[in-house]
Amino acid sequence: MPKLYGIGVGPGDPELMTLKALKILERVEILFVPKSGAGVCIALDIVKKAINKDFRIVKLYFPMTKDKRKLEEHWDIASKAVEEALKDSSEGAFITLGDPLFYSTFSYLMPRILDLGIDIEVIPGVTSISSCSASRRITLVAGDEKLAVIPAAYGLENLEHIAEEFDTVVLMKVSRNYNKIVDKIKELGLEDRALFMSRCGGEGFRAKRLEEIGEGNVDYLSMIIIR
Amino acid sequence: MPKLYGIGVGPGDPELMTLKALKILERVEILFVPKSGAGVCIALDIVKKAINKDFRIVKLYFPMTKDKRKLEEHWDIASKAVEEALKDSSEGAFITLGDPLFYSTFSYLMPRILDLGIDIEVIPGVTSISSCSASRRITLVAGDEKLAVIPAAYGLENLEHIAEEFDTVVLMKVSRNYNKIVDKIKELGLEDRALFMSRCGGEGFRAKRLEEIGEGNVDYLSMIIIR
Repeated sequence: MPKLYGIGVGPGDPELMTLKALKILERVEILFVPKSGAGVCIALDIVKKAINKDFRIVKLYFPMTKDKRKLEEHWDIASKAVEEALKDSSEGAFITLGDPLFYSTFSYLMPRILDLGIDIEVIPGVTSISSCSASRRITLVAGDEKLAVIPAAYGLENLEHIAEEFDTVVLMKVSRNYNKIVDKIKELGLEDRALFMSRCGGEGFRAKRLEEIGEGNVDYLSMIIIR
Repeated sequence: MPKLYGIGVGPGDPELMTLKALKILERVEILFVPKSGAGVCIALDIVKKAINKDFRIVKLYFPMTKDKRKLEEHWDIASKAVEEALKDSSEGAFITLGDPLFYSTFSYLMPRILDLGIDIEVIPGVTSISSCSASRRITLVAGDEKLAVIPAAYGLENLEHIAEEFDTVVLMKVSRNYNKIVDKIKELGLEDRALFMSRCGGEGFRAKRLEEIGEGNVDYLSMIIIR
């Protein structure tokens, strides 16, 4: 049975890859690389920095859209491309930034690949959340504390009571509606508890209080930790 | 200035350590190891499996108690022990299972160490949550989904509305009141969404539906993922 590894390559620093990820990547020949829009693939950059090797690279295109039908169409095309590529080889690896089951396209591809009779092994990775908290020595949770993780691009209606109930709230995907999100945080008086962070553990790392950022464009790989 | 590394050694499998953790551990001579009650130190077992080397091991004792004053006393004793040990050496590493800022004793030690004028660098690790989801290929969160992480040993009063609002709820520390927690999950009709997992990514790994577990003792390193 052909096998696909879903490999989390960590948050950005090649040294934050796991020994297991490195070992598998040193062995496999085919690399499946997610590609969306004009974006470069950061996961591939990480692997290239860690391993000097000529992979056969199969790019899988995932458009940046909320159109469910269009997305499903592309996931189907991608899973067929994986099936086709694994015909010649017994194994390959899909690489993803952070962890494959934590806000990764891999989650959508996974059931389709399994349906095609291809085995899957998931190699967990260090998430951007752990990397961001480490870079500024902010405890995520300790003892009896609760953690909430929310993709902020999709609305923050319940942020007020979530921030009351949870000791730490991590807002992911804050770049799209950044100014609106900051307005909401200010409106709820949560500004002093909030820290903006982007590209933790990688090049271009930034960690700032919201008032230091001002309005404007923020990096796609950004989050806000409210604690 | 002396320096303490807070190193997450991952969820159990020595191969799930990061390259950075390995590199620092191969260099430092002093290892600070948390020890509680009669418990063996799993973090130390992981390091020993990955690195064949004679460390100078300093055990730090943290009692298993909810008595805040007693705990604080021991954190103070521990931070003094770190200060004392780092007098002879410029650096050392505190090792912790999973990630140092995600339910680790390291969070309590960290401010005390900084107060003593010792620098700290935190090396993030793969959490037990990522490892558990990987081992059974369960998506933690994707797209617009929300994640809640709750230490179940401290009460589950609000589980009903949290399970309504969040797509995935991870209950940590379920061993202490396991039967009560399962009763609560059944009462709320969440049983079909729940999976019990213990020692993911390590020896003694178990993943079971709640009805397969029955009453009785469960491992300290257990969680329930409700999705």
